[in-house]
Amino acid sequence: TVRNLFLLPGDGIGPEAMAEVRKIIAYMNDAMGAGFVTNEGLVGGSAYDSHGAAISEGDMGKALAADAVLFGAVGGPKWDDVPYEVRPEAGLLRLRKDLELFANLRPAICYPALANASSLKPELVEGLDILIVRELTGGVYFGSPKEIIDLGNGQKRGIDTQVYDTYEIERIAGVAFELARTRKNRVCSMEKRNVMKSGVLWNQVVTQTHKDRYSDVQLEHMLADAGGMQLVRAPKQFDVIVTDNLFGDMLSDVAAMLTGSLGMLPSASLGAPDAKTGKRKALYEPVHGSAPDIAGKGIANPIAMIASFAMCLRYSFNMVDEADKLERAIANVLDKGIRTGDIMAEGCTKVGTAEMGDAILAE
Amino acid sequence: TVRNLFLLPGDGIGPEAMAEVRKIIAYMNDAMGAGFVTNEGLVGGSAYDSHGAAISEGDMGKALAADAVLFGAVGGPKWDDVPYEVRPEAGLLRLRKDLELFANLRPAICYPALANASSLKPELVEGLDILIVRELTGGVYFGSPKEIIDLGNGQKRGIDTQVYDTYEIERIAGVAFELARTRKNRVCSMEKRNVMKSGVLWNQVVTQTHKDRYSDVQLEHMLADAGGMQLVRAPKQFDVIVTDNLFGDMLSDVAAMLTGSLGMLPSASLGAPDAKTGKRKALYEPVHGSAPDIAGKGIANPIAMIASFAMCLRYSFNMVDEADKLERAIANVLDKGIRTGDIMAEGCTKVGTAEMGDAILAE
Ligand SMILES: CC(C)[C@H](C(=O)O)[C@@H](O)C(=O)O
Ligand SMILES: CC(C)[C@H](C(=O)O)[C@@H](O)C(=O)O
Repeated sequence: TVRNLFLLPGDGIGPEAMAEVRKIIAYMNDAMGAGFVTNEGLVGGSAYDSHGAAISEGDMGKALAADAVLFGAVGGPKWDDVPYEVRPEAGLLRLRKDLELFANLRPAICYPALANASSLKPELVEGLDILIVRELTGGVYFGSPKEIIDLGNGQKRGIDTQVYDTYEIERIAGVAFELARTRKNRVCSMEKRNVMKSGVLWNQVVTQTHKDRYSDVQLEHMLADAGGMQLVRAPKQFDVIVTDNLFGDMLSDVAAMLTGSLGMLPSASLGAPDAKTGKRKALYEPVHGSAPDIAGKGIANPIAMIASFAMCLRYSFNMVDEADKLERAIANVLDKGIRTGDIMAEGCTKVGTAEMGDAILAE
Repeated sequence: TVRNLFLLPGDGIGPEAMAEVRKIIAYMNDAMGAGFVTNEGLVGGSAYDSHGAAISEGDMGKALAADAVLFGAVGGPKWDDVPYEVRPEAGLLRLRKDLELFANLRPAICYPALANASSLKPELVEGLDILIVRELTGGVYFGSPKEIIDLGNGQKRGIDTQVYDTYEIERIAGVAFELARTRKNRVCSMEKRNVMKSGVLWNQVVTQTHKDRYSDVQLEHMLADAGGMQLVRAPKQFDVIVTDNLFGDMLSDVAAMLTGSLGMLPSASLGAPDAKTGKRKALYEPVHGSAPDIAGKGIANPIAMIASFAMCLRYSFNMVDEADKLERAIANVLDKGIRTGDIMAEGCTKVGTAEMGDAILAE
């Protein structure tokens, strides 16, 4: 089999982290005949610098044609003042929208070796394993009108529109319920139905989907603000959380930070299975950003990027054993006390990006 | 002087907590001739039960006429299925909107005696003192269209609209900068300018307001998702945070939970100073909700409600000494180890709502 991967390293520490994934891909091709064929493109600030857009049409075409996209990170102070339409994030948002990657899976797990790195008391995060399922192609990110209008008299008006249709809520709820069945069988749906009409609809559709097709799964509803509180107070109460694009952005970042493992967390963004082939479009990216302050120094933690590739093996290529192995290799390296600077602790060995990648590969 | 207070105890533990404030008001009238005249009304579920609306026109009139409103809490499972327009929260939202209470001040402080109650490591929250300034009459809470439309074919569409005008951002930024000057002189403004046009405008107007009128204050901008992360990672880096209605809802709840003092935190919602009298309309309420599970048992913590009254003394009546005294009384009672169940710790004395109120009064 040929497995087409499209790599978009992006800006900041993206390229350094991606280099470590390349090593693993090369190893899998050599040692196991995995048949990965890689193509590489530009996204974010680096795409803007080279052709004035956050992603080129050519690269969009390659992303659409690939079996899976591996994405590094975008943005940095260098591009803080570029026009809104071509800002680095626009590349990522276009990929999500045009590939119809409506389901963003963000595991918030606490690596046992890192429980002490959390700002929370270790007993609250040890063994933490939450999966946040965030809707990724709807809501306030893409609704229109989305504009700034000049009202005259020195007054402007900024407008964004949150829109959700029944089918969009239904399909993301379906993903959350399916995944819950492979885990602890519990889903908590979060919205602000006490303030937002889209929240009212969200609540109704999730409730109905549960009743119609997933009544074996335990379902709970929580207001998103209360959900944020509960994440901080007692995160282990959750199994799968399903929520909209904007709440998902906020809540998954809070959840990620709680684990103390931010530099380690991967994510997967999936489309619907193709009616004929059953294949899903997919993009995999670390939860962390481009960290411009440490970019180019060879000290960034590549684990989130490598763990994103593990999710790619699992979800795009059904290479479950290989994904398990890669994830175990990461855990083993951490258990051995090998650490990049961001997760350094007393008595551990401090390494750079490449050494960390090599250590995982060796495992 | 006559000082007109309008009390809206609301639902759940609201009335119990308000009873303790009544004791303090009575004491201040008797012992110090404070001249408080109180009126009481219904809001939330209790208003719905008695006249089918979340607040009556008569009570709205009294709220508009009063010098300050003291608000307990609203909501509970009993009213989960009432129509959207008359749900308990609608009473609170109408008060905010009709009284034009655009500035919501939410201090997140960690009472030293309670640092251990936080889910964060004590050293991260000891001495924490943040003030979140949340815009309260704009954004997605009140923009239109806000509706669910039937698209046919079993499909519905839920729509909410986030709208901010220049003047709305300017005035809330002004409040934040003014308050920063009385504190550590630092403001962090949070939005999602990388995704929302209202965030782009927010960022521009805050920057301009700073440049024009408050360049002595230190200003920082942070994306709201990163802000949520930083709150969890290192909350003490913040002094004043200014943000919009929805992000303020999420972020202030997270910040409140971090302190370990959730049952203790007050808030103030202020209008603009009247052009002639300089007086501001104002509403004071605890950050916690109606806690229906413990309502009516006499075990709720009244401190947040009492601390809200202290904010009322400070901001509505300029009774700074009295406010200081009341806040010190709360801290002293906590130092003595007197605790309601929610903040109980080893070696402390567990008391009920009324005893806690009495202990604070005695101090
Ligand atoms: C980069 C940005 C547009 C993006 C988002 O807001 O979705 C990021 O914060 C994320 O969570 O993936
Ligand atoms: C009760 C609800 C409408 C309210 C809000 O969302 O503003 C509450 O969560 C708050 O923070 O005061």
